[in-house]
Order: sequence, then structure tokens, then C-alpha cells
Amino acid sequence: MIIVMKARANDEELQEVVKKIEELGYKSHIIHGVERNVIGAVGDERGKAKLQSLGVLSGVENVVPILKPYKLASRDLKSEGTVININGKVKIGGEKIAVIAGPCSVESEEQIVESAHAVKEAGADILRGGAFKPRTSPYSFQGMEKEGLILLAMAGKEAGLPVVTEIMNPQDLDLVARYSDILQIGTRNVQNFALLKEVGRCNKPVLLKRGMSTTIDEFLMSAEYILSEGNNDVMLCERGIRTFETATRNTLDLSCIPVLKEKTHLPVIVDPSHATGFWTYVAPMSYAAVAAGADGLMIEVHPHPEQAESDGIQSLKPEKFAALMKNLEGYKKAAGRL
Amino acid sequence: MIIVMKARANDEELQEVVKKIEELGYKSHIIHGVERNVIGAVGDERGKAKLQSLGVLSGVENVVPILKPYKLASRDLKSEGTVININGKVKIGGEKIAVIAGPCSVESEEQIVESAHAVKEAGADILRGGAFKPRTSPYSFQGMEKEGLILLAMAGKEAGLPVVTEIMNPQDLDLVARYSDILQIGTRNVQNFALLKEVGRCNKPVLLKRGMSTTIDEFLMSAEYILSEGNNDVMLCERGIRTFETATRNTLDLSCIPVLKEKTHLPVIVDPSHATGFWTYVAPMSYAAVAAGADGLMIEVHPHPEQAESDGIQSLKPEKFAALMKNLEGYKKAAGRL
Amino acid sequence: MIIVMKARANDEELQEVVKKIEELGYKSHIIHGVERNVIGAVGDERGKAKLQSLGVLSGVENVVPILKPYKLASRDLKSEGTVININGKVKIGGEKIAVIAGPCSVESEEQIVESAHAVKEAGADILRGGAFKPRTSPYSFQGMEKEGLILLAMAGKEAGLPVVTEIMNPQDLDLVARYSDILQIGTRNVQNFALLKEVGRCNKPVLLKRGMSTTIDEFLMSAEYILSEGNNDVMLCERGIRTFETATRNTLDLSCIPVLKEKTHLPVIVDPSHATGFWTYVAPMSYAAVAAGADGLMIEVHPHPEQAESDGIQSLKPEKFAALMKNLEGYKKAAGRL
Amino acid sequence: MIIVMKARANDEELQEVVKKIEELGYKSHIIHGVERNVIGAVGDERGKAKLQSLGVLSGVENVVPILKPYKLASRDLKSEGTVININGKVKIGGEKIAVIAGPCSVESEEQIVESAHAVKEAGADILRGGAFKPRTSPYSFQGMEKEGLILLAMAGKEAGLPVVTEIMNPQDLDLVARYSDILQIGTRNVQNFALLKEVGRCNKPVLLKRGMSTTIDEFLMSAEYILSEGNNDVMLCERGIRTFETATRNTLDLSCIPVLKEKTHLPVIVDPSHATGFWTYVAPMSYAAVAAGADGLMIEVHPHPEQAESDGIQSLKPEKFAALMKNLEGYKKAAGRL
Repeated sequence: MIIVMKARANDEELQEVVKKIEELGYKSHIIHGVERNVIGAVGDERGKAKLQSLGVLSGVENVVPILKPYKLASRDLKSEGTVININGKVKIGGEKIAVIAGPCSVESEEQIVESAHAVKEAGADILRGGAFKPRTSPYSFQGMEKEGLILLAMAGKEAGLPVVTEIMNPQDLDLVARYSDILQIGTRNVQNFALLKEVGRCNKPVLLKRGMSTTIDEFLMSAEYILSEGNNDVMLCERGIRTFETATRNTLDLSCIPVLKEKTHLPVIVDPSHATGFWTYVAPMSYAAVAAGADGLMIEVHPHPEQAESDGIQSLKPEKFAALMKNLEGYKKAAGRL
Repeated sequence: MIIVMKARANDEELQEVVKKIEELGYKSHIIHGVERNVIGAVGDERGKAKLQSLGVLSGVENVVPILKPYKLASRDLKSEGTVININGKVKIGGEKIAVIAGPCSVESEEQIVESAHAVKEAGADILRGGAFKPRTSPYSFQGMEKEGLILLAMAGKEAGLPVVTEIMNPQDLDLVARYSDILQIGTRNVQNFALLKEVGRCNKPVLLKRGMSTTIDEFLMSAEYILSEGNNDVMLCERGIRTFETATRNTLDLSCIPVLKEKTHLPVIVDPSHATGFWTYVAPMSYAAVAAGADGLMIEVHPHPEQAESDGIQSLKPEKFAALMKNLEGYKKAAGRL
Repeated sequence: MIIVMKARANDEELQEVVKKIEELGYKSHIIHGVERNVIGAVGDERGKAKLQSLGVLSGVENVVPILKPYKLASRDLKSEGTVININGKVKIGGEKIAVIAGPCSVESEEQIVESAHAVKEAGADILRGGAFKPRTSPYSFQGMEKEGLILLAMAGKEAGLPVVTEIMNPQDLDLVARYSDILQIGTRNVQNFALLKEVGRCNKPVLLKRGMSTTIDEFLMSAEYILSEGNNDVMLCERGIRTFETATRNTLDLSCIPVLKEKTHLPVIVDPSHATGFWTYVAPMSYAAVAAGADGLMIEVHPHPEQAESDGIQSLKPEKFAALMKNLEGYKKAAGRL
Repeated sequence: MIIVMKARANDEELQEVVKKIEELGYKSHIIHGVERNVIGAVGDERGKAKLQSLGVLSGVENVVPILKPYKLASRDLKSEGTVININGKVKIGGEKIAVIAGPCSVESEEQIVESAHAVKEAGADILRGGAFKPRTSPYSFQGMEKEGLILLAMAGKEAGLPVVTEIMNPQDLDLVARYSDILQIGTRNVQNFALLKEVGRCNKPVLLKRGMSTTIDEFLMSAEYILSEGNNDVMLCERGIRTFETATRNTLDLSCIPVLKEKTHLPVIVDPSHATGFWTYVAPMSYAAVAAGADGLMIEVHPHPEQAESDGIQSLKPEKFAALMKNLEGYKKAAGRL
């Protein structure tokens, strides 16, 4: 950590900071500048909020952390990329691009089975479908819950696809884990630390969605919560961040892909459906995600979007999804990931 | 809901939308414009995502909701402001400004008792202190948990102050409710709907913090989750939103106060400590919050900020807090809330 | 325009709005809803701030514009895409992707000539180089001004490349137009309406950069300023928007490409160098931009980035740029734009 | 400047950075950390983009500036606050709060004269009114230009109030300076460096508005442009920043007041009208601005807001403004600024 002193700080104030640094078990190292002095506090600063509290001392201008706050998620620790094996069927983070597709919510047996067959046929690798739905309004459809889980598992089995679904409450872990191959942590729960710890203790792969205002460093810290409990199979999902722009539902932050690839060994998935919020933008952003280096895509597909209980406007019809999958081939080839 | 048609939409496309609107149980009403047509769908649209899914129909440009999505939280429903009575001792939302103060975390018996006496003496109404701490890093201090709850309750009793503390996991509800007078839902859990429903079912007042990127309408929808389960005692807490500006930890959105006062009957509290992230900015922003119409303040006070396990840099020393409370008198008087 | 009345508005208030709408020359059309009424004001609302001022009338909740505020920039007006011909040599907006490359600033004859040959050899179509530099600090290098323009023009001529450079002051129009083939309006001047009108009156193609916090609709309105003065050759350049994320200099908003393609006929260029601010991220974001549908790229290339007067950290060395251009082929092919 | 090395950087890479630092004329100073090394570059780094370009060297993780980039605007240089004297009549930055009021645009003689008398009577110190209007749409009213300037000057004279109006084009400097007492640089021109330099060379006080996405440090750098040309009379105006929240036109960043007061000696004005965009929010935010430490307010007042050519919805009627001024007294007293 670097402690920057104020321009007018006197020697006494400098010495007080040095003393506190050493009391906390760090070595101190002063650089005398032309206008102000800075002090390096040498030692592992991670998780040490006490060092940052030195910012209250008179004479201190500000405190600048140097080390990245995550360890297990860091590529410094593990330089080769993590490959997550889903039931021996699909690999995420390997050479091939993995495509997760299906409806926002499980709405009926017919709907989820029809969806499963359609996405399978178009070339998807994994089936998605929400049973517990985090809805902004308590008056909106909240999902079919347990029944939805059973229907999703059944549809996946029928089509020969592993399934992913969201878990919202630590109490539901056993139930959701029984019926799904991947546990999804939604955007609104990216810093629900009670839930992160819980899924960190089970042995199912986790798809962790970035929050609408989560920085990349915070996103990696949320992954670190899961990793630090012993679960190594975490995939990161960019799904748009909240900005001033309202032409799209969120702003898809594709540059997070090369940034994440530099900082972490975990695979990166992109969800262009939630990011853009409108089906016509999903195909170009899927191609762009693969071009930017994503390991996979998560795409909403619904047999009858205009009847969807949620997010119909961002769902592709099966034939549009099939066309997207076909066009994707060229981009996969260009990216060397065919 | 207003459905705006594309400029080039033909009559067939228009009629299809009309048909779908009526199938969903709404009345339709067409306005023929000079360049494009719009269709009003008359009926209660709240929670009806299906109406929004009409946006996928060819011919539709976009869909504009008209009704506010919240009901119970709305001032249209209840025009007089809600006053929340805490243990018969303190009223929040009434004529007087309520001040909640104390350390970020309970760290020891000595620290919380010293804090309790100090804030009581300076004129605070309620004691705060975290026992379960939502920390970005799994390696940071996570709070004293049950022991922290007991110490907080004890310190509050000794100083004659009701206490507020954060609940992070639905499973902890009974435990946290036993030891506290107000349940705090933290920023990161503002859309943790499982937790919101849980606190909605108990009879403790709830302090709901706005998320870092929660719009005012979404914030009210989170309150609506609690209200719709039967708990009417919800106070809203603005604590800074995430913007591009980094000179402060967050950007305190004080204009949300008059906006909330217009839209809802629920009381509004402001937390200038988390919003600004630096103790020197806490006093002016406390005065500004009262001037803008806040019903209360939530301020971090720590007897020894430079030793704090968390957020020391934004905590006031007891003597600074006492000075703030003294200066606040003039602003309370100007606001007619003495 | 749609005027939404308050839930409690009475009939008198409704009639007052109707009267005012008609006084302003619009037809009014009331839809009686279950909870509140809305009034459509039928007529061309563009540029009519007076209609929005009706929001102050008692009884009015809010005013919702329906028409897009731009006309000439709109795809509704001109459905085929605009192709801009640069000196009969390069087409922007046509089938082929155009690549603009070169250093941030012209720093010396040697530097700009070396750059010009290097980018030409790698396959670039247009040379960039700043002579008037908008720098955040008055103490930073402000550009070589007229001398820089002359050197840029000379280097372009030598390498057989048209050139683009920024204009910052309406007074410099003749000077800058004399030495360049395309006039660039920088990010910070996207709403410098005096400058927009000035370049609208000349007959040089304009590269208009999006501002850091310019919405897509505002961006199109800035283009409309130029178009409405008679200059039709406007290309739009996305270069990153300002968000809370600090891992990249800005957040590249690639989803603006399909949105712009839907709304306007003007070509879209992407600048991944300024957007990401770091050279290692430039190649993946270039590929992604082409995959998302961009018509061109603008990339910073410097023969010796570590000696650059400005933006060295985001500049590619010539050999890295050549590698990028080679890899780009696959993506151009996939996009059908080879 | 602090150069942070990568965790895996070797000694050769470290020595290369040291060599480059010294070639640029700085002294280098290495701190060997437990995981990575950092190098201090000692010397005045301001305006030295070359030092930041070292970020491209292999082995470098990132480069952290230590010195604040502004000099003349800094409170380190001049600890007492600047007081700006307007025509010997009004002081801005002194003990008293200065209030600037008037319509968004000058629309007619009658309108501006009526406004001038009304705001004078209510206690305003300075009259505002736009003659050159920066409008998002080229089809909107662009201001009365020279005629508007003359009418504004006349109205100010009649009411005994100095006047402020916006300048948008460097070419208009003489004209605008002839008719006004303060030159306003608008939000959209905060980084129009050609214009900033121009007003820096004249001897009129300048009211500089913060841009919608300008950080506080960038805002001070824009002031520095004016100061560095020799004009010391710069007042800073916070008018709301652009965020995701749409309930208000912008988000008023009142915490920038204590931040600015700490960093700079220049006076700070707040414009709650543009910030909130709705007249009902103007009074509470005016009180809050004074409570937060502002030196002045800038408020839109229009005799007939529902007929205004621009921004009617955020303008106060004269009687509402008079009520605001009366209520403000209590807050001025509490702030010790009566």
C-alpha cells in the first residue's frame, strides 16, 4: 500500500504514519518527493482494512492499494485457463465455444420441452430456464419454483442437454442442485455473500453473473468468495452494466473480456440478451462477444416470445436462433475456436 | 401502456397489436398521428410483462408504461406520511429528525459500549453497529456475528438507545430480530428478493438501503416487496449511488429526497458516511440532507477510527460527531423540524 | 407527444391541458384510463420545447415525446446506407471495412512519415494524426498546430493515404480543411454547436466522435446539426463512454452499432484505442467491432509508443498493428465484408 | 508518479524502467515489496504524458500519478478563498451567498424586464438570461443572439443587477463581453479548450459550468486553462452530472462542494434548476446547496413557465422564487452566511 502525504504535512505527521504502519506489522519505506512525500507499506495488504483506516491521520492525503485484492481467481496464481467440465458432456473454457440457450422462465412442460429440442437442434450445448425468478415487481410472475426445476431437468434429459438455473435463496441449495447441472447466481445477487459462501461449499459448477454496477475487481472478489470455500468451477458472465444510455436495456461491456482474460484464469461467458434487452441486437453482439474472446454465450430463446411471461422482447424465436448459430461459425473459425 | 408503432407500420400490423391487446384483457385505443400511430392499452398494467412482450411484434417501435409499478408504497394510495414508532421511544418520519449513529462494525464490548455512550450523549436517537458484515473481500473481517448482536443489544440497553443492525441471510432472521429493534437490509441486498420477502413477514421495522445502481422506481419496488408481505414499517435510506466520479466513494443523490417525498409516504433517511466515504465530508452532507427534507440521518461514529476493522476513514470521532449534532440544530430549525 | 395526467387530476385540469395543446397548434386526443388519463398531442413535435413546458401545469404527471428528434439522420427518411467517398480513393459505409490508423499526435516529420508508411504497408486506408490537441491539462503538449497539419498532409501524400485530423476552433476551419481530407470533431466538442454548424457549411467529410456521456439520440442530433447545414458526409465514431468501470479508460459501447444501424443511414466507425486506453485490448475490440457491424476502425499506431507525447499507452507498435490487420481478415470474411 | 511492476517482472525489466525514468529527468526510487516492486519517479510530473507512456514497457503493471494535475486552482498554492467582485456591487465567494436568477432564454423585452424586476424584488443579486442557446436540436429556438444580449443588458440596468450570459463561440467574445458582467461557459463547452483559452485572456469574471460527465479533477483542469491565461476570476458551477437515474434530469452532486472547498480556493455556485429539471425540486435543493457550503445559487425564474421557449418545466414562477428566497434565510443563518 502507498500512503501519500499532504503537501504541507510535517515531519511529526510523517513519523506517526510510519509508526502506525509498523505497529500493524508492515515495513515502511519513505520516498521524499519534490512537493510531497509518499510512504510504501510493504507486506500483504489484502483484506487489511486497518491499513486503509490510516487515511484518517492528519497529514495523510490518501492511501493507494498496490496488490490486487483477489488471490485464487488471479492468473498470477494459475496461469493456464480453467476448463470446467459439465457432466463429461460439455467443456467451458476450452477450445470450443459453449452455447447456453433457452427461455427466460420455465412456463409449462410444452414450452420448455419445445425450447429444449429447438436449441439442441440449432447446436446449443446447455439448456437454460428459470424456476425461481428475481422480478423487480412482487406482482410479476415469480417462476414455477420446484415444478419448474423438475420440468427443466426433464426437458434437458429428453434433449440430451445439461441444464442451468438460478438459485436465489441459500435455503434452496439442495433442491436446486438436485435438478440442475450448473447453479446460476443472478446479477442482483452478485454480492449476496451468504449465497456465494453457500454455493462455494457445494460441488456444482457455478455461473456467476456480473452485477449491473459491479466493477471487474469486485466481480473477481465475488468469484473469490466461491473459490475460497473450495469450489473451483466458477464461470463469469458479463450481462451488461448500468450506464446513462437507455437505447439498450444495459450497456454490454465487451472490453471486460480481454481485461478478465488478463487478470483471471476463469472462463468468461456473455449474455447478449439481458445486456441489450432487444432481440434484434442479440445476433451482432453474440458475434462480437466471440470475436472479443468470450468462451461462451448465454442466449434467450422462446418458441413464442410474444406470449412470454418475462423478457419476451429480448428472446429469439427458434429459427432466428438457428440462423445466429449458423452465422456464428465464421466468427468461431476466425477466432480459432471451431 | 402506450404502444408506439413504427413510422412504416401498415394497417395489418396495427390490427394485430390491437387484437393481442384485447386478448390480454385490455381495451385498445388508437391515436392516428402525422407520422406514426400509437395505441393505448387501457387497464391495470402492473406486473404484466406479457403486455411488454408485444414489443416483439413487427410494426411495433416501442412500448411505454404509464402506471407507476408500485401500489402500497405510493403516495397516491396513502397521502399522509408514514411515521414509524421504534419501541415507543423514537419516531421516524414525524416532525423530529431521527439520528442513528455508531460504528460500522461491533468490534469489542469496550468499543461498542464506549460508542453507545458517546452517541447518546451527543444526542443520537438510535445506535447502529454491524454484526454480520457484507465485505467485498472474503479475507476481510466478517463481523462478530452472534456475539456482536449480543454486545450491540447490551450496549443499546445500557445507553437507553434502540439498535439497528444488518441482516444478510434469511436463515438469520430469528436471531437478528431477537437482538435488534430495526432490521437493516444493506445496499448489496436491495434486490435480494428472498430476503425482502422474509423481513416482510416479520413485525420489526426495516431500514432498506438503496443499491449502488438502483433507480428510485426500483427502490420503491423493493420496498413494495416488504409492504406486500404485510410489514408496513419500511424506511428508505439513500447512501450514495455509483457514478463515474471517484473523488467521493459514491455520489450522494440528495435530490432523491424531494422525488421520494412526492412519490411515496415512507420516511427517508440519509447515510452521508457511506455516500462520501470520508469523514471530513460527513458534516456538510448531513446538514444538506436535513435541508433537502430528510427524516433522519445515519452516521458512522467510532471512538478510534484509525484502529477500525472497517470504514475507519469515513467514521467520525465522538467529539466531531458532537460538534456536527450541535451545528445541525440551526438547519433543523430552518427546516421547521426542531 | 403523450401527456400523462396525475391520478388525482380533475376534469378542469384535463381541459386546461387540452386547451393549451390546441393553442400550440396540435390536435388533442384523450384516452381515459382506469387510474389516470393520458392525452395525445398530434402533430410534428420536433424542436417544440413549448409542448414540453406543459409539464408545469397542475394535473400533469409527465410528458413523453413519441417522435425521434432527428429527421435528416433518420433511416426512416433514407433507408439505404450512406457511402462517403474520400477523394475517390476510399469509401466509408460501403461493402469494405475502412481502417484509419496513425499516431495520436504529429510529433515530428520523421515520426509521422514513419507512421504513414507503416500503416499503409499493413493495409490501412486513411492516416490519422493530431495537430491541434484537446488536452485535459494546459501544461500538456498542445500539438504542433499549423506545422503539424503540413507534416500530416505531406506524410499522407508520400504514403498515398488520405488524412484525417481534428478541428477544435471554428476560426481554424479554412486552415484545417486545406490540409486534410476528413475533419474530425473530437469527443469533447460533440455538442460544440458553433463548431458543428461551421463544419456543416463546408464540403469536407466529417468524422464526428461521440461524447463520453452522449446518448445515442443526442449523438444523432449532433450529426443532424451538420446535416441540416447541408453537409451530408458525416460518419459517426463510437470511442467509449464514461461509466463507473475504471479497468478500461472508457467503456466501449459496441451495442450502439446495431442500434445506430437501425436508426440512421450514416456509417459507423469504432475507435478501440481511446475506448480501452491500453494497447493490449485494441486487437480483440477491433475484431469485435467488425463482428458487431462497424463500417470502419480508427486505431492509434506509433513507431515508439514509450516516447509518445500523448496516449503512448494505448498505441500499437507497427508490427502489432500489422498482426491485427492480418487477423482481422477472418472476421471481415465472416461479416461478408472482405 | 508511482510505477507498479508486474508480479512476475524480472530485474532486467525493472532496470529498464529505472533507466527511462532517469532519461526523462526524474529520480527513481525502488521499493521492493513481498509480491511485486514499485518504483517512485521523483519530480514534477504534471503535464508529463511521457512518464505515463512508460506503462507500455513490458514488466509494468500500471502507473499511478501522485501530484494533483492543477497548480493555480489549488488550495495548496493559495489557502484563502478567492472572492470575485462583480462591478463593485456583488461579491462571490465572500461571507454572503450570491443568488443569480432569471429565465433560461431572453425571449422578448417584456419577458426579460419583467423577470429582472421580479428577481430583484425577491432579493437576487445577479440577472441571468441566455442569448446564444446551446440546444440539442438544430430545430429548437437558438436564442435571440445580439438582440438578446442588448435586452439583457438593458433589463439588468433597469433593475440595478449585473448580468451573466453564455458565450459559445470564441468569435463572439467581444460582443458578449460588451453586454455582460460575467461570461458563462456552458456544460457542453467545459472542455472546449479553444473557448477556455479565449475567455482566459479577457478580464471578465467567468462562470464555468461542470460538464455532465466531468470529474472534479477535470473540472479543476478546465478552470486551470482559464487561470493559466491570466484571468483569476473563475467561479465553478455544479449543475448535475449524468447517471443512470432518470427521475431527475441529472443527479445534483452536492458532495462536490466540500470536495472542491478542500481542493481549490475558487468559489462554488450550484444550479439546482438544470440539475433536477423540475421546478418542484428546486427549492429543497437550493437549501441543501447552501447547507453543504455553496457560495451561491443559480436559479431559473420565468414569469410564465408554461410559455417558455426552453426549460419551462424547471423554471420557478416569480412568487415561488420569492418564497424560496424567504425560506433560504434560515439556512443562510445556520450556515453563518447571512
